[in-house]
Amino acid sequence: MTNEEIHQLAQRLRIDSIRAAAAASSGHPTSSMSAADLMAVLMARHLRYDYSNPENPNNDHLIFSKGHASPLVYAMFAAAGAITDEELLTFRQFGSRLEGHPTPILPWVDVATGSLGQGMPIAAGIALCARELDRLPYRVWTLCGDSEMAEGSIWEAVEHAGKEGLDNLVVVVDVNRLGQRGETMHGWNLQSYADRARASNWHAIEIDGHDIAAIDRAYSEAEATAGRPTMIVARTIKGYGASETADKEGKHGQPLKDPEKAIEELGNVGPVHVDVAKPESAGTPHRFDADPSVALPAYEVGGDPVPTRLAFGQGLAALMRRRGDVVGLDGEVGNSTHMEEVLKATPERYFEVYIAEQMMLSQAVGFQVRNWTPFAATFAAFLSRGYDFVRMAVISQAKLCLNGSHAGVSIGEDGPSQMALEDLAEMRALGGSVVLYPSDPNQTVKLVQAMADHDGISYIRSTRSGMPTIYGPDEEFRIGGARVVRESDDDQVTLIGAGVTLHEAIKAADTLAQEGINARVVDVYSVKPIDVETLTAASNATGGRLVVSEDHWPEGGLGDAVLSAFADADERPRVVKLGVDKLPGSGKGAELMHAVGIDADARRLVELGPQITTTAGATR
Amino acid sequence: MTNEEIHQLAQRLRIDSIRAAAAASSGHPTSSMSAADLMAVLMARHLRYDYSNPENPNNDHLIFSKGHASPLVYAMFAAAGAITDEELLTFRQFGSRLEGHPTPILPWVDVATGSLGQGMPIAAGIALCARELDRLPYRVWTLCGDSEMAEGSIWEAVEHAGKEGLDNLVVVVDVNRLGQRGETMHGWNLQSYADRARASNWHAIEIDGHDIAAIDRAYSEAEATAGRPTMIVARTIKGYGASETADKEGKHGQPLKDPEKAIEELGNVGPVHVDVAKPESAGTPHRFDADPSVALPAYEVGGDPVPTRLAFGQGLAALMRRRGDVVGLDGEVGNSTHMEEVLKATPERYFEVYIAEQMMLSQAVGFQVRNWTPFAATFAAFLSRGYDFVRMAVISQAKLCLNGSHAGVSIGEDGPSQMALEDLAEMRALGGSVVLYPSDPNQTVKLVQAMADHDGISYIRSTRSGMPTIYGPDEEFRIGGARVVRESDDDQVTLIGAGVTLHEAIKAADTLAQEGINARVVDVYSVKPIDVETLTAASNATGGRLVVSEDHWPEGGLGDAVLSAFADADERPRVVKLGVDKLPGSGKGAELMHAVGIDADARRLVELGPQITTTAGATR
Repeated sequence: MTNEEIHQLAQRLRIDSIRAAAAASSGHPTSSMSAADLMAVLMARHLRYDYSNPENPNNDHLIFSKGHASPLVYAMFAAAGAITDEELLTFRQFGSRLEGHPTPILPWVDVATGSLGQGMPIAAGIALCARELDRLPYRVWTLCGDSEMAEGSIWEAVEHAGKEGLDNLVVVVDVNRLGQRGETMHGWNLQSYADRARASNWHAIEIDGHDIAAIDRAYSEAEATAGRPTMIVARTIKGYGASETADKEGKHGQPLKDPEKAIEELGNVGPVHVDVAKPESAGTPHRFDADPSVALPAYEVGGDPVPTRLAFGQGLAALMRRRGDVVGLDGEVGNSTHMEEVLKATPERYFEVYIAEQMMLSQAVGFQVRNWTPFAATFAAFLSRGYDFVRMAVISQAKLCLNGSHAGVSIGEDGPSQMALEDLAEMRALGGSVVLYPSDPNQTVKLVQAMADHDGISYIRSTRSGMPTIYGPDEEFRIGGARVVRESDDDQVTLIGAGVTLHEAIKAADTLAQEGINARVVDVYSVKPIDVETLTAASNATGGRLVVSEDHWPEGGLGDAVLSAFADADERPRVVKLGVDKLPGSGKGAELMHAVGIDADARRLVELGPQITTTAGATR
Repeated sequence: MTNEEIHQLAQRLRIDSIRAAAAASSGHPTSSMSAADLMAVLMARHLRYDYSNPENPNNDHLIFSKGHASPLVYAMFAAAGAITDEELLTFRQFGSRLEGHPTPILPWVDVATGSLGQGMPIAAGIALCARELDRLPYRVWTLCGDSEMAEGSIWEAVEHAGKEGLDNLVVVVDVNRLGQRGETMHGWNLQSYADRARASNWHAIEIDGHDIAAIDRAYSEAEATAGRPTMIVARTIKGYGASETADKEGKHGQPLKDPEKAIEELGNVGPVHVDVAKPESAGTPHRFDADPSVALPAYEVGGDPVPTRLAFGQGLAALMRRRGDVVGLDGEVGNSTHMEEVLKATPERYFEVYIAEQMMLSQAVGFQVRNWTPFAATFAAFLSRGYDFVRMAVISQAKLCLNGSHAGVSIGEDGPSQMALEDLAEMRALGGSVVLYPSDPNQTVKLVQAMADHDGISYIRSTRSGMPTIYGPDEEFRIGGARVVRESDDDQVTLIGAGVTLHEAIKAADTLAQEGINARVVDVYSVKPIDVETLTAASNATGGRLVVSEDHWPEGGLGDAVLSAFADADERPRVVKLGVDKLPGSGKGAELMHAVGIDADARRLVELGPQITTTAGATR
């Protein structure tokens, strides 16, 4: 296509953005219009993508980090012939694939965007995947808005991609000066972006984002740049091409008042078809050697105490030797989470992402875009740093296996900043998530394998201190299961725990036994989904008396999960919820568990003894 | 003090760090030893702080962003005479104020640190507070580790402080090269940090962090630098001064094996007392004019629909005119959250923090350190970006008033990336938090006032679309309350909602009435704490049949809060929980609420009609 033809394409992309937003009576046409020239040149001359085969591993990737410019990316799909004009005009309608912000319901969209500052780090993850995992020459392009450059996650990714020298990554920054509410921090100061990129080993190019030839040169320069990623910082005008919107404040996220006039001003360009070039490479993704016969680690029942975090690391390392698709990501705490077991066993598939949890999660999301199975681990407390990234991964329908270690007050001396007390609630609240909290090393190993087979987001909580091994290595555990660990024909109460509190429940059962009360103990290692059947049976067998204890604030975690299991059941047990009832400090784990009321001697449990006896007496 | 005396002080700080960790058998002495010279020079010559009066508004602030270097800051407190040697050796013991990471249990500690990358942005917030709110000449010093410089939140703050030109902010980066697991991304490449700071309008100085004279010169240079903040990038050696630890890998977070030998190598320096200089200024903090008689906005019952987000903005603007201590922070979406009402009413106390939620929350935490009452607002979905900062604010025992707008599927066309569906769970899980979700503008206004009076973390969820005004402007609402909005003597079921679902519950009650079923409707506007008394009365009056509906994933939010209210009650109702039951897309709010099963025609509610009739018939 000639420069003039590309200009016509850009005008059509603007017109289609306006038309789509007009049909929807909402959307972000002005944010699309600023970037239309940038994207027109890309699709006409530089992108290598087979729209008829989005699964082609050699396809380039294009991530709209500024997801609100969805009218533009949909207009590009129309120009590429991937969607019809009719579908374009279903934008934002109920049931349409063309949602307000792009999601992978569309086969040409890798990840959901719309929470700013996420697409670009994910793009950096895909670029690293190309080099280290797929080992294919595809390129990753990403379009950022200038407003989102204020997100620290962008600069985490700039630092990482610069350090890695990812020359297959091109970031295009659409500096249209105007954010949602007013001018951005830096207005049209292109250098403010370029200088920071350069300080992180990037090649940066400042251009007029409406100059077709300049854009083309910049892309060529990016393609020719070896050893470092490129940031193209483009001065653009928001709402470019229409007098109603060009460089006007107060026009963010609004359809045009007079779309017809704007379309006229844009030259009334009709549909333009672009034959987007297909990938030149026909390579196949690299596959790592694996040996499904590698044995899983096994721990002796009653042997020395083993922390579940160690079993996580050892179980994952074994899994990775058995399966070549699994990769491990470390938030620079691998000697604590034991992700470093992966570094020892399969160093090619170990990724150190340093103290940058948002980047770690973005990289994991990027890897799974290309069908790798990522496990990412840090302290459970610090996974909260990337919660928005996990939230968006739900919308991306991503496969993510997450581990949070050092959960709860049981970690002891390090104090509350290192204690996750909200992670079960966080992870449980996510649509379709799996939340696991094992109490035993053999159980942990089995659950790690199950996570790799689960298509979605799964989370496993691990514990710092060693705990007794109570399950044999041949026992099976499944997502959605629970295990009765102690029972008799004469149980008067069910004690429910998971992780450290399971062992406290066992001790409490011993104590109650001395008082003549038999207690059933249930290990609810799968917090979500929860095993309603096992819980119901236990409740029925113990007079509807349950005590649930968790090393977590009382809200949103195991206790609430147990309550939910019985919410509208015909028989609803009395559930005594024990959780962390005050802000903990430092101390020994056992001291803290006692102080916050979740250990075997928990005040409420002790008080409960006589109550259970009385109630049991009354009902028996 | 002479340079030699300062060197002796530094050695003593190292010795005390080693002794404290040895007494605790845990802790981070090596991370303390690298920064001891930097802190010795600071306290001997540059810090202005009255340890006998930590509330002095003219005190400098010193934030240990690398909170794990707590032995060092505690050793400084000992050298300043603020704590005894005896207390120093209680480090990390149960009940000691000297926790594993610093918390404001100690009067000289402003905020809890230990989640890396948070102290420095908070320091930037305090520095802005000095200039814009307190209008006092105090200085803010912060000590960062090099590992934490990988956190994007650091660079959000670098960008903000550079843009604001905060010359009262000095960031000292202790580049000891070694992270927890191994070498950091940049090792001893000081320039990699300095260049990035310079690219954001900082003055940056690279020094040898063990050279007393160089450190002193750098601080003087920082003090003399006008119009921009200073970053001092110091090359240091982790575990400096002891052969067992100096520049050795694998020594992070561990007490020394041979503390006696190390103390010997450090010259066996005894206690050193430092007379830290008191502030020279005796100024009083600026106070803004306020007029407690300013009327609150009032909305007409049955008038045009009003979005609660608008009532939030208008209610907050009125509050700020009534109270001079309240400030407003905007994540560059003030035209959506209506934080821009504050900009119109009290522009001096409005802060635009751009699309940088971690910085917004850090700034808010910084402001409340100096006793201002911050309200921070963005889309509820994007508050999740700063969840770790709110988690840490709990440990800081901070006063934070948070607003999240655009909650739930009811926002409609923008699609799931913009819909908070986890926020109630997130905020409810935090220890001691308050979670509010009003359904009416007058109610919203009253709750905003209550938040400002609440000493802790409170969250109010607001809604995008207009809803009917059902409460008069004179009605009172309180944290912990609920309101029965419909009742009769013959109610057979209680419908519970909050926000948008309250109005659906009212509609559903109308529908049920047509089927001959009277329904009680309860507005649980305070999700946490929840009004157990009102819920119990409603349950008792309606045969223990509750239906609760929320615009949120089903876990961790309103439904679980209701279940928890009855967990171990003698009478436990049957609770039908309705929540978002599938990943939503785009569409009209009403279409989506119907599709995910939370509107008045919710499938389960319709199915429930006959069930209620039957059950009611059976029990009556």
